[in-house]
Amino acid sequence: MTGSMLALVKERPEKGATLIKTQIPVVGDDEALVKIDYASICGTDVHIYVWNEWAQKRIRTPHIMGHEFAGHVVETGKAVRGFQEGDFVSAETHIYCGHCYQCHTGHSEVCRNLQILGVDRAGAFAEYIAVPERVLWKNSKSIPADWASIQEPMGNALDTVNAESVSGKTVFVTGAGPIGILAVGIAKAFGASLLIVSDLSDYRLDLARKMGADVTLNPRRDDAESIVRSHTDGAGVDVVLEMSGSEKAIHQGLAVLTPGGRMSMLGLPDGPVSLDLSNEVIFKDIRIYGITGRKIFSTWQTVSRLLSSKLVDPSPAITHKLPFEEWQTGMDAMVAGTCGKVVLEISGR
Amino acid sequence: MTGSMLALVKERPEKGATLIKTQIPVVGDDEALVKIDYASICGTDVHIYVWNEWAQKRIRTPHIMGHEFAGHVVETGKAVRGFQEGDFVSAETHIYCGHCYQCHTGHSEVCRNLQILGVDRAGAFAEYIAVPERVLWKNSKSIPADWASIQEPMGNALDTVNAESVSGKTVFVTGAGPIGILAVGIAKAFGASLLIVSDLSDYRLDLARKMGADVTLNPRRDDAESIVRSHTDGAGVDVVLEMSGSEKAIHQGLAVLTPGGRMSMLGLPDGPVSLDLSNEVIFKDIRIYGITGRKIFSTWQTVSRLLSSKLVDPSPAITHKLPFEEWQTGMDAMVAGTCGKVVLEISGR
Amino acid sequence: MTGSMLALVKERPEKGATLIKTQIPVVGDDEALVKIDYASICGTDVHIYVWNEWAQKRIRTPHIMGHEFAGHVVETGKAVRGFQEGDFVSAETHIYCGHCYQCHTGHSEVCRNLQILGVDRAGAFAEYIAVPERVLWKNSKSIPADWASIQEPMGNALDTVNAESVSGKTVFVTGAGPIGILAVGIAKAFGASLLIVSDLSDYRLDLARKMGADVTLNPRRDDAESIVRSHTDGAGVDVVLEMSGSEKAIHQGLAVLTPGGRMSMLGLPDGPVSLDLSNEVIFKDIRIYGITGRKIFSTWQTVSRLLSSKLVDPSPAITHKLPFEEWQTGMDAMVAGTCGKVVLEISGR
Amino acid sequence: MTGSMLALVKERPEKGATLIKTQIPVVGDDEALVKIDYASICGTDVHIYVWNEWAQKRIRTPHIMGHEFAGHVVETGKAVRGFQEGDFVSAETHIYCGHCYQCHTGHSEVCRNLQILGVDRAGAFAEYIAVPERVLWKNSKSIPADWASIQEPMGNALDTVNAESVSGKTVFVTGAGPIGILAVGIAKAFGASLLIVSDLSDYRLDLARKMGADVTLNPRRDDAESIVRSHTDGAGVDVVLEMSGSEKAIHQGLAVLTPGGRMSMLGLPDGPVSLDLSNEVIFKDIRIYGITGRKIFSTWQTVSRLLSSKLVDPSPAITHKLPFEEWQTGMDAMVAGTCGKVVLEISGR
Repeated sequence: MTGSMLALVKERPEKGATLIKTQIPVVGDDEALVKIDYASICGTDVHIYVWNEWAQKRIRTPHIMGHEFAGHVVETGKAVRGFQEGDFVSAETHIYCGHCYQCHTGHSEVCRNLQILGVDRAGAFAEYIAVPERVLWKNSKSIPADWASIQEPMGNALDTVNAESVSGKTVFVTGAGPIGILAVGIAKAFGASLLIVSDLSDYRLDLARKMGADVTLNPRRDDAESIVRSHTDGAGVDVVLEMSGSEKAIHQGLAVLTPGGRMSMLGLPDGPVSLDLSNEVIFKDIRIYGITGRKIFSTWQTVSRLLSSKLVDPSPAITHKLPFEEWQTGMDAMVAGTCGKVVLEISGR
Repeated sequence: MTGSMLALVKERPEKGATLIKTQIPVVGDDEALVKIDYASICGTDVHIYVWNEWAQKRIRTPHIMGHEFAGHVVETGKAVRGFQEGDFVSAETHIYCGHCYQCHTGHSEVCRNLQILGVDRAGAFAEYIAVPERVLWKNSKSIPADWASIQEPMGNALDTVNAESVSGKTVFVTGAGPIGILAVGIAKAFGASLLIVSDLSDYRLDLARKMGADVTLNPRRDDAESIVRSHTDGAGVDVVLEMSGSEKAIHQGLAVLTPGGRMSMLGLPDGPVSLDLSNEVIFKDIRIYGITGRKIFSTWQTVSRLLSSKLVDPSPAITHKLPFEEWQTGMDAMVAGTCGKVVLEISGR
Repeated sequence: MTGSMLALVKERPEKGATLIKTQIPVVGDDEALVKIDYASICGTDVHIYVWNEWAQKRIRTPHIMGHEFAGHVVETGKAVRGFQEGDFVSAETHIYCGHCYQCHTGHSEVCRNLQILGVDRAGAFAEYIAVPERVLWKNSKSIPADWASIQEPMGNALDTVNAESVSGKTVFVTGAGPIGILAVGIAKAFGASLLIVSDLSDYRLDLARKMGADVTLNPRRDDAESIVRSHTDGAGVDVVLEMSGSEKAIHQGLAVLTPGGRMSMLGLPDGPVSLDLSNEVIFKDIRIYGITGRKIFSTWQTVSRLLSSKLVDPSPAITHKLPFEEWQTGMDAMVAGTCGKVVLEISGR
Repeated sequence: MTGSMLALVKERPEKGATLIKTQIPVVGDDEALVKIDYASICGTDVHIYVWNEWAQKRIRTPHIMGHEFAGHVVETGKAVRGFQEGDFVSAETHIYCGHCYQCHTGHSEVCRNLQILGVDRAGAFAEYIAVPERVLWKNSKSIPADWASIQEPMGNALDTVNAESVSGKTVFVTGAGPIGILAVGIAKAFGASLLIVSDLSDYRLDLARKMGADVTLNPRRDDAESIVRSHTDGAGVDVVLEMSGSEKAIHQGLAVLTPGGRMSMLGLPDGPVSLDLSNEVIFKDIRIYGITGRKIFSTWQTVSRLLSSKLVDPSPAITHKLPFEEWQTGMDAMVAGTCGKVVLEISGR
């Protein structure tokens, strides 16, 4: 397909982005062209938008941002075998090589030759995107298209929750940002017997309660440790899900994690974190899981089911659904942290 | 049994210890009295001997040190059901309560009411020790008594190695102290396909080679990262066993750990360690296991088998076997780090 | 405590049982005497009552049946350390030795020297029972006493469900007897994305729906395979929980289990079952878990939480709550299969 | 590449095969043409050769057999990205679709649309074979080409051994055919503390000893159960690897499996097997793993390491290395069972 399309483009190496007309991407032999229904904004997009240090090093302008989406296939390259025009799809963001050590041992999410959609190649804040077949995912038709657009971050939430089973376990979630509250919804659905959530924002704690938190606390005014201990017979929690990247939250999480328990870490600290490994980790006999990306495609399979069965209803987490032209409103909310997931309506309504 | 016995006693709250005559301990109803054949010196005993900060807070003098031993039961309390005079035994050092949350969920090694042999009650550097039945372990007669005396630290090594299987994996061991080299022997026996060991002491690296290391390196003169990468097609290792407690070693270990790999941490850093969690842990999708104590008694069961089947020959790791009276020589070697395991012959020969 | 008590006694080696006065049991040093509030009837009690082949070989008359109960400690032996008068308790039925290979490797549920409460020693269908401390379990006061009396079979259900996580998985439960429907409630609470239940009794299928089944089917009139496939895009289910012991159900379960899936087997077939291992098991790359007993005490810990948090509400599964004197009504319902759990009120009301 | 090649062809639907000249296969866009160095004979090839019931249903003549091989790429299709002329390769036999439920959940070894090399398309008993890129595997140059040709069955052996770790465990292997003895070598390398092997053929038991068996027994004259119990303090083994497909061996394996242990089943019984599931499986709380295929490619990764590190030396298992023209000798040995692996030298020498 040729012609022009609307796209949110980072035109210059500085803060900002512009909604402009640009060329529809040309699909390679092993790629499909997808017409975007909905795309949602990720923290990574915010980094690119505000042009932080990481973005300055990684992104080459002009660049189309965005990688969380749902849409329909409108064209396929010659070598595409598993998809055809009309398929309702989303995509795994991590374009793996398939030939490295990680790809050969079940860890293509950390492929050594990883390319990232919307980072290393043109993204999804546009009417069309070209996507290699090997990362395309066919969506169940029973999933609303706006829900389908947030499967990628929901996959992060799932892998954080599910590094070990939470069923019947007590869980402390530190950080109620967009992925944090999706993790709350998933942990609730999977039978966590107690779900305590902390965040510095009362707005976000309110979202956490809507997604299923049993107890919420704000470390600005609440004593996290005493609250957690009072709800767990003094034993602390079995599981900590660290979604904030805050050094303070990491220490609080480790303090209330029961000896023998586990912590998953998804939140990205900005700088170094000083840990008393002997007392916080080793003497407590705990397990720590670093979480990045999603298992390809087992994570997608489960996320898809959680949505199609409505076991998790992400509606409270989708706080903004905006026409593409109003992307600035959504980006501002993301920068301010006054939102859950922000979904842009591109061709979808 | 009444009467006096020889024991190595910390008499006063200061550096040192004295070999003196003292009373044979009285056994409680649920305890057995064990005549010690061999006892080996642990780093914890060194801490008590040199009277470091931890010891000053924890130990009440006069105190009999020591907790790694093998001996024979000579008397049993009335409530003892599973042991009798003549049994060849060792003991788990962690006296668990059996009733707390950790004990109820398979983590009695981190029991909330833990008492430690030779720390919180009289220890094994003595002709006799009283031990609660629930931590007594019956040794296979096919295990030499000096080998049997090091099963407790060998259990630490086993749990560090075995947090996940090492079979067919590439392994980097940072730290070749007594437990480090036992871990080397175990990883070798379990089929690690490559075993690289680092230490600052060439003496210890030599012991590591004797226990099965394929490659050794001394960070004082060798570039750990380039050596590890050259042996792993650039991919880094699947497994890091951190046995040193050194901040530098921890960073080196994380640097060469392949994305998706795991690290076990047994070595105890003295102070806080500053980690770049985002890049060293989270983006690499790795798992970290804090290791303390031993699984009671599944770890003992396996250690026992490794020794009785001679799958692991710990002889090179037992660098000193000394008459009880020469305990000072052994303690000095432990303080200097010029040894593997130091075994004291008490009644054993 | 001395004196007499009411007990349901198998007096002679033949079908039947009698409610009579008998001696209150004498507690040993390591035992506690428990006053029973509620006791519930197990299939094993039915076997003893009807005096089947197994019972004839195993049971010595006169014998007090029953092993599922909740009550209060009224007396403790001298060696009891962790319990005292007034404690609200239940008990693990499997009295393990603590010294065999199984006990040493985390499998005391299959201890080589296993004694079973109510089978190898006097049971709980009585006003008082003597129980060794090591199998006593302290109940949370937030659990109603009748619910507490069914924790033991609920533990069987939990271990069947939880051999691997069911969160986000499709599950087929074959058999909706008392333990089957408890398994339904647990799988629902743990986030099974689809829960299909089969049974030959419509009464039981109704209980299954009340406990959370999404789809029920009766093989007398329904085609199990086509129903399961139609709900799973033809792929079959991820998990089969075999609770019936029926050869037909086992084959149906294996037929609809998706390749790479797992089956837990708790139901006990009466005789040999003929399996096409090549096609039903090996070529499908599946895992089969035989389930007996409960993990001591991690299973109890989780069951306790499921009840105290009300994550699982077992009320629909408790179809009968009868005064002790009306035990015959309950036993008849158990024999006929026209019930879920039958709970006898002994001192509880 | 065009022209003719030598190939072992099943020409007619009856017992037998003929070494004839035929066309070199044409490679598709996503395929590579491989010049075969060595190919080894699998039981499946024997089934096709003798034309058993399964072969009659599945194979369409004329057909080139064979699927275990090592060779060099001589030509690549246009869409091939990861391989080039000169690469030293072998191939996974299971050509998976990449789009089904199994492929999406880490089980492409049981892909719903599976095609098998040498069964559903032309095989490797030929000078050239065309192989889809997605199942090609690049061999380490440090592996001898004849060893490289047996990686596929060695992968079966690995998955059977490694369903759970065997390190420090006691293992009973029932069946010492070609894959059984490779499993023996792997279990030995991975630190099984005791390795007992049974087979009806003394010739094969001799191969098992050469591959590392500690104890061998022939059920024709030895009492398997008493031998196993005498070597395990009466407890039975932790692990059974069933490689025979014999009903008798399956019962023997289950009888000596310690309660709480696990059995892997790879051997394919010819017909139904009658099991006493209650006593052989359920009351014993055991786990059974059906094993088929290999994990793609994590199994290959490990096999490759075992060979390149020489952790497993398969030489004793390769009993025959024959020029291609002498294929009949090898096939006869396979039919008679008087061999380990039979390797045909095609272009390799």
